[in-house]
Formats: sequence, C-alpha cells, structure tokens
Amino acid sequence: MKVTQSLAGAGMRSSARLAVDGSSQLARRSFCTQRPAASTLFSLSFSQHPQRRSLHMTAAQKSGASNPAMAFPCLDALEDRSQRLQSERQQQQQPLSTTTTARSSRTSESGPEPNYTSGATLRYHCEEPLRLDWGGVLREFDIAYETWGTLNADRSNAILLHTGLSASSHAHSTDINPEPGWWEKFIGPGEGFALDTNKYFVICTNVLGGCYGSTGPSSIDPADGSHYATRFPILTMEDMVRAQFRLLDGLNIQRLHASVGSSMGGMQSLAAGVLFPDRVGKIVSISGCARSHPYSIAMRHTQRQVLMMDPNWNRGFYYGYGQVPPHAGMKLAREIATVTYRSGPEWEQRFGRRRADPSKPPALCPDFLIETYLDHAGEKFCLTYDPNSLLYVSKAMDLFDLGAAHQARSAQRRREREAQEASEGAAAAAEAASGAAVCTLTLPDKPYEEQPEAGQPTAAQALNSSPPPSETDSHVASMMPGAPSWQPPQDLVQGLAVLRNHPTLVMGVASDILFPAWQQYEVAEALKMAGNRNVSHYELSEQQSMFGHDTFLLDLKNIGGNVRNFLG
Amino acid sequence: MKVTQSLAGAGMRSSARLAVDGSSQLARRSFCTQRPAASTLFSLSFSQHPQRRSLHMTAAQKSGASNPAMAFPCLDALEDRSQRLQSERQQQQQPLSTTTTARSSRTSESGPEPNYTSGATLRYHCEEPLRLDWGGVLREFDIAYETWGTLNADRSNAILLHTGLSASSHAHSTDINPEPGWWEKFIGPGEGFALDTNKYFVICTNVLGGCYGSTGPSSIDPADGSHYATRFPILTMEDMVRAQFRLLDGLNIQRLHASVGSSMGGMQSLAAGVLFPDRVGKIVSISGCARSHPYSIAMRHTQRQVLMMDPNWNRGFYYGYGQVPPHAGMKLAREIATVTYRSGPEWEQRFGRRRADPSKPPALCPDFLIETYLDHAGEKFCLTYDPNSLLYVSKAMDLFDLGAAHQARSAQRRREREAQEASEGAAAAAEAASGAAVCTLTLPDKPYEEQPEAGQPTAAQALNSSPPPSETDSHVASMMPGAPSWQPPQDLVQGLAVLRNHPTLVMGVASDILFPAWQQYEVAEALKMAGNRNVSHYELSEQQSMFGHDTFLLDLKNIGGNVRNFLG
Repeated sequence: MKVTQSLAGAGMRSSARLAVDGSSQLARRSFCTQRPAASTLFSLSFSQHPQRRSLHMTAAQKSGASNPAMAFPCLDALEDRSQRLQSERQQQQQPLSTTTTARSSRTSESGPEPNYTSGATLRYHCEEPLRLDWGGVLREFDIAYETWGTLNADRSNAILLHTGLSASSHAHSTDINPEPGWWEKFIGPGEGFALDTNKYFVICTNVLGGCYGSTGPSSIDPADGSHYATRFPILTMEDMVRAQFRLLDGLNIQRLHASVGSSMGGMQSLAAGVLFPDRVGKIVSISGCARSHPYSIAMRHTQRQVLMMDPNWNRGFYYGYGQVPPHAGMKLAREIATVTYRSGPEWEQRFGRRRADPSKPPALCPDFLIETYLDHAGEKFCLTYDPNSLLYVSKAMDLFDLGAAHQARSAQRRREREAQEASEGAAAAAEAASGAAVCTLTLPDKPYEEQPEAGQPTAAQALNSSPPPSETDSHVASMMPGAPSWQPPQDLVQGLAVLRNHPTLVMGVASDILFPAWQQYEVAEALKMAGNRNVSHYELSEQQSMFGHDTFLLDLKNIGGNVRNFLG
Repeated sequence: MKVTQSLAGAGMRSSARLAVDGSSQLARRSFCTQRPAASTLFSLSFSQHPQRRSLHMTAAQKSGASNPAMAFPCLDALEDRSQRLQSERQQQQQPLSTTTTARSSRTSESGPEPNYTSGATLRYHCEEPLRLDWGGVLREFDIAYETWGTLNADRSNAILLHTGLSASSHAHSTDINPEPGWWEKFIGPGEGFALDTNKYFVICTNVLGGCYGSTGPSSIDPADGSHYATRFPILTMEDMVRAQFRLLDGLNIQRLHASVGSSMGGMQSLAAGVLFPDRVGKIVSISGCARSHPYSIAMRHTQRQVLMMDPNWNRGFYYGYGQVPPHAGMKLAREIATVTYRSGPEWEQRFGRRRADPSKPPALCPDFLIETYLDHAGEKFCLTYDPNSLLYVSKAMDLFDLGAAHQARSAQRRREREAQEASEGAAAAAEAASGAAVCTLTLPDKPYEEQPEAGQPTAAQALNSSPPPSETDSHVASMMPGAPSWQPPQDLVQGLAVLRNHPTLVMGVASDILFPAWQQYEVAEALKMAGNRNVSHYELSEQQSMFGHDTFLLDLKNIGGNVRNFLG
C-alpha cells in the first residue's frame, strides 16, 4: 500500500510527504487508467436548464467519472408539476394583451381564482369592518361554516367547534356535502357520539385567514379588486374568534352551550371563553395550549421559511395567469408539519427502519418508508391549501398567549387605535390602519446574540462549547415545565382567571411533541389556581395512545368518550 | 349591522341570501369610499424580477389596498447574498471564453475550489481504492486529521475520537491551528481532562464524505478532474470507519486503546468495534445509537429536501465559475437541525415567548427570539460546510444499523462484488462499479400506501380518521422503545455480540430528542444481553442537563467526568 502523509491546510499542500510502501499499485492502476479524459459534452442547453435532468450530462458522467451521477426522481416530479400547473393556468385563461401580463399576475379578472374549497358550505357575509389585534382591518369578510343538529327554541344548545390549522368546517358530512368530515365519527345523533346532534346544534367554521370560503389571503381585497396575498393583515387567534362571534350574532345565538376544539381549535376554544366569558358555557380544549412554546414556534418557523424560500411563492403574489403556486415549498412544509403531528412511538412500529424498496441502493430522494410516508403526506396536501393561509394561520398560532400581560398589551393597542379613530375621524384612522409601519418588521440590526444570564450559556458557548456553561442547578430545574415542582406562571393564572366559573375539560396526550402534555397540565393547573373547581384534566399515556398530536382525530374511546361525558 | 348568509361551495355563490339589519353602514362606508381604484402601476420590471422587492409594487399597494404589503427583510438578505456570492465567484476567475462557460461550471480548472477548511490539519493520502458498502468506489482518498499527545513506544495508547456530522477534526487547538476546538476543554494534559494527553495519543479525523480536507463530494474526482458533486457514491458509517483504519494503518497503529465518539461519532465508535473488534480496546458512545430511528430519519430527510429544493443546489453541481452555492437551503437545513440539537426544556427558559423586538408588529420573517436564534445558527453555518457533504453524511446516518441482518446483507453485497471482480477482472469490475444501476433509485411506481397491520391504522385512516384505528393494546405498548417491558430486538443483540468482551461506556441525555435516551439504553441492554459484563450506562436526567443532544459539547462534569473515569 502506497500512502503519503502531508501537512495540509488552507492553501498548504506541500511539506513533509512521507511515503509508505504498499502493494496495491496494480489495483490502483486498474482504477485509474481505464477512464477517458474528462468529456466536453456539456452543452449550453444544460446551463440553460440547470435544474432539468440532462441526457448530455448523464452520458458525460458515465463515460468519465469514478461513479455515476445520482438520479433525482423526486425533483423531476416537482419540476414536472410546475410545468403542468403553469400550462394549466395558461390554458384556463389567456391574457388580454401583452401589456396587461404583469398586472394580471395579481388581479382576479385575468386569471382563475385558486379553488381550495373543501365542498359546499353555508356562508356568512359581514360588512361591518373587523379591526384586528395588530392594527390591520378587514372592511368586510366572509365566514364559511357548516352546522349539524337543530337550534332549539331558546337558542341555548349551540356548540361551536373549532378546527385545527388546515382543517375545514367540514367536520361531518352534510346534505350538501356528503363526504366524510374530519370528526365524522365524533358527531352524530345519539348518546354514543362525542357531540350528540339530537341534543346540540353544532357549528363549525372555516377560520378567518384560511382558504375554504372564509376571508383570507387568497380572497379579493374589496379596496382594489386584487387578491390580498401578503397585503393581508397579521391575524391572531382572538381575531378569528371575534369573526366567529360575528357569525353567532348573525345566527342570533347569544350564548354557546360549549366551545370545543382540538389543536389550534383548543387554543381558540379557550380564547372564546376569555374574550366572551358571558357568551360561553362549557369549554373543551384538547391537545391545545394557553400559549405557544418555543419548540412549536421553531417547527412552524421552519415550515414558513421553507414555503417562503420557494421561488414560486413570489412573496405571496402567486395568484393569477401563468403563475405557479409554491407547491414544492408547501409539500415540504407539510412534511415537516407531519413530523410534529405524528411522530413518536407509533413510527417505531409502523415504519421502523424499513426501506421503500430494499432491493435498490440508497438514494437522496425518499428512500426509507418513513420518507415515502412524509413525501406522500406532502403530495396530498400541497395543492389543497392556500400557501399564504398557511403562513398567516401558522403565525397566529405562534402569537397565541392568554397570559394577562399579553392580553393587556393587546387591549391597550386596541384602545389606542379607537381613541385615534375617535379623535381623527374614521377617514384618517383608516389611513393609519394601512400605514407602512403597521405590517413591516425588519430583522434586528444586529444578528441574534445571546445575552448571558445567570446559569445560562451564550449562543457562542452553546455552539462552541467554550467556555462551558454553568451546571444546571436545582432552581433552574424546578422552573422547567413538567418538572415535579413546576407551576404555571402567575401571569397565566391571571390571564385565565376570567374562566374561573366555566366548567372546563382539558385533555392532552403523552406522545404529543407539538402540544406536549405539560401544556395541557399548565392550562388545567392555571385554571385551578385561579379558583376554578370545575376543571377536568385527562392525560392519555403512551399506552393509551401512541399517535401523538393527531390522537384527537383518532381516539373515539378516550377523546370522544371524555367529551361526551363532560358535555352531559 | 348588515350581514348576509348564503349557501356557498364550489362555484356556488347565489341562493338564499338573508339580510340581517345592523347599524354599521357608516363605519363600512368610511372604509370603502376613501380608496382610489386599483392602481395599474405594476411595471414589467416587477415581473422580470418577481422575487426582488419592488418600489413600484409597494407604492401601488399602499395607494390601493386595505392594508399594506409586508416587507420580507429575511428574503432580501438571502437575495443580496446570492448576488454577492455570484459576483465574488465571477471576480475570482474569469472564464476563458464563452464556449467554455457551460463546462466550467463543473471543472476545477475554471473556478476556485470552495474552501470549507476549518484550518490546517495533517493529511493522509491513500492510493489504494476504497470499495464502499453500497457499490461505489474511491480510487484514492485523503483523510485530514489532527493529533494531541504522543504515541508511546509500543503504539498502544492511541484513542480515536469520532466527530459529529458537521464537526471537523479540530477537537482541540494545535500548534498549527491555535483556534479552540469543539472539545477544547475535554482534551488536555492531566487527570482533569476527559482525554488526558499526558497518557493518550488522541487522533481525530475529518470524516470521509465531509469537506474539511477528507475526500468528499466537493473533492476532485481523479477520473475526470471535475468535482465529484452528486457523482460521489453513497457512503455508510462503516465506510467512514474503514477509511479511518486506513489512516491507522498508515500511522502503524495496530490497536486502539479506545474508540470514543458522540452523536454521529457515537455511531462510528460502535461501528469501529464491530468492524475491527481485534483493533479496538474500550468503546465510548455518547448520545449515539446502534441504529437510526424514524424520527431522526424524518428530521434529516426534511433537511436534505430543503437543501435539494434550493434552485442553487442544481442537483449538486454548484461548484465553479459564477455559480452560487445553495446557501438559503443550507441555512434552513441548519435551522431544522438546530431544533433537533438544542430544543427541549432549555428553550422554555432561554427564549420562552420573547420577541426580538416587542415594539414592532409581528412578521413572517424571524420575529420571536427563538426564530432569530435559529436564523443566526443558520447564518453562521450556511457557507462553512459543503452542502453535498451534508447530504451524503446525513444519509449515511440514516443508513446506520448494527443489527445482524443488516450487517449480513452488507457483507453479502461486498462478497458478491469481490467475486465479480475476481471472475471478470478488475477492469470489468470497475466498469460495473460505475454502472447506471448502482446509484440511481427511483421512487416506487405507486405512491406510499400503508399496508394495514393488526392494530395499526392505515395512512388514510391516520390522515382522514375514517374509519378509526383499533385501540393500542398492551402487547403493542410493550413493544414500544422505552416502555417498561421493552427489550432490544434479538437482531441487535446478535449484531453487537462481537463486542461482548469490550468494556463499553454508553451515555445518553433525557432531554435529547434526536438520539433519545432509549437509544442508548438499547445499546447498553443489547450489549448486556449479548453477554457483555463491562457495560457502563449513564442517563443524564433533565435535572442534570436540559441542553438536549448538544449536552456532549457542554457538560464537562457528567460527560467529561464519566469518560475520564471510564478510560482510567
């Protein structure tokens, strides 16, 4: 074996070479002399379409390289879809003339509206402007909704069911949309169902900001006839709930028997009680939380970033003639989301380390069964939900915080704006509402730098391990959510105090990584500390459910049964 | 308040509209009549540069829309960097002529080599071909490495230290590179250090497939003088370890005192013992595993996909004149990775729900402190590591499995290839090694479809919740890793049986979500079940460390102390 050692570094490649004799000259020659020199087959067609598979390139590489180039069927598929979508959109409507092409990319007249509907719904249209928590305004808006059961004579048996992020109002089949809904088996006539439509009038809405018929970024801004796109204002959970209560006004329902929701709907269910305590009876919050925590924000952050990184996203302006929606970014965002929805012990058994096709060599495209599962989940979703809706609704989840301080700041902002409107008149206020400062945020001038705190490592320390951090002490440990001695912060106790008389059911699942069980414990404990004596808290163990966050979609016995018992 | 309800659906927008009187006509008019009609300011310059911020667009939107468009400083920054990188690469070397431009995108002569070095190292060059587990071949290769301490007379005091995925050989400062290393405080002269350089000769290598001097995708393929790029063959942990042992051959070290590693290095540390049981004394595996599990594969999958989705990745061929590396994809991949490295209870305290600048309204670009932290982590990394190396090394981690069946299959493939080489001669074998079948994998013809198993929901069931799955029963629960009655599979016990006489230290951290503590428990138990009576297993509780996977970089007391005591 002939080996050489050398001192190498940035630019250094000479110095002390020492050769060690070996016996593999033959073997080496056999690999080095069989090859033609590098081919010059690369044509300009390759550089013009650098992302497309190129027969030229493959031929060149096969003839010249030590090993063949890889194939990327997953990228081929994305590119094929882009081409197909583009030609479909071009066929749907031709532009009127060349000069209108640029503008047509944003106006509704020149291209078909994207169609994300999940089926026929009822629609409520409200022309009273909705002022949003962060300063935006919707001059008018729609709420698409569906109902099951019958509103009783004194209008006291309504249950408002809140959805998860991307779920539609179609929780159950209806006469006008017989497709099974996402809670099909949880809703029905009789005592066997979590929501008994013989007793209750169940209402489920599409959230404001979504794309299934309620006003959202893919809707037309009445002010200029163009899609809102990223001119849609920042939303909060509370804004969505306010829109829902406008619908209740329209339906002449003063008070809900119960507010029920899972996941994001579990946030909204609590928010409904906090915003409208006199209009909500019982509260059910399943796999939800009272404030988003950093891991969940981080995971949603990566989903938003991957979507925004897709060139087809085009800063939100992908509606209209010849434009392609950011399907690749959406697909991958959904894959990341699926990790947070479903991972955990279930995957160990369901997928383990099985590969999709063990007879084939590994690949950088999906290869393990878990990868093809994620790929498939992304495929199914990527054209069925509006990418901008995903951004806005996801962001609203991050912003959710029922702590007293956060509530006070929101209320203060709203008061200030009302005062401004009163003093300057509605016209000026409207102008202010669309001022440039409202929805632009720049990154901090300085990149993130950790400010050292007692017992905490800096970011530099964390990444470089130099100097090492102080040891975690027992004081810090006791502050960790889920630790035995841990208690919810007083700020949250105060924020939930308005619910001290509301019977509340809180459920969580030990295998949930997105809304971990400590978050539901936090809600239940905060309510109890606020004086609520009607709090029911259940945590499903890993033995009861290994399906993680999605348990609320699946578990009729524990989730469904507890809801049924609680609603009575 | 004037509201209307209508039956709406796919295409349905008419039917029963019912109006409810209200009192907000004034308010509505005030928002609807102050606006000019939609502007037609959109210029062709916008459509030509759809991704760039456009003053035209902003002006139009401000004058016409209900709310202002958002700013996206995070995307501006990415685009600015793309432009800067492109002009830098163009300035570094001009192409010889127009006709060579296309080819120059791949050849080393026409553009500067990317420089990912972490500083000066020693370099070992081996000209004996390395045959890889999955059929590829490296005709020759370099291993960059660093050493600390002195090799004793009988060459018996060497410790091979294995790195994590993106770490370099620079575990500690050296004479030729005084920068602090990633285990700076763990290595040094005296009993106070985890690795005592008064006693041991510590060697750390850059992994094969990496970019810090060892041969990897950014290296030049000797067969044609071009960068390997994605013509680099699929690698395994075992391939990396074989390359390391070539270095040991070159250093004339027959037997290691110990093999030590954390994270990916913890995988390699075990693999070294399994591949070369007679050449390894003690084994230390920290926050590693004996086989990758689905969550970790899923998280690495999303990192690879986001990188491959970056148009600048260009299917791996981004080296050379005027080309821009996929820095945006790298940045986001690192952000996702950082979630897996560091999340957990630490983040609750360190970031909580704090926003980077609470005085500003929320934004879709990084906004919460946790987001700016991730953004910063991505920024620091995105140009310091070769994107193709990330893909290959990440993939090698997915493929890691020390179970007996997997080992047998690998051995079988190698035997078949050796037999083929022997019968057909080296030349034909070399041809076979670069045959098209070796490194192309297509997706299955049919998209992923779950095959129902007893007690398991199908993918359709899981996503649609219809029909609901069977309940998890106690039998299934007992099969879950980490459950009280759970035991490592017999396949792994057999796979690790060759280590039954190796003193082994296995450490894990309860707050680690990437290599969860049950994986180290699995290693330790499998070794014990194989008959190993010298297994030390420590699991750091959340009270001992809340730093998740990265604890091995930080915790001198528990991690460092246990290593020191174990090595003796």
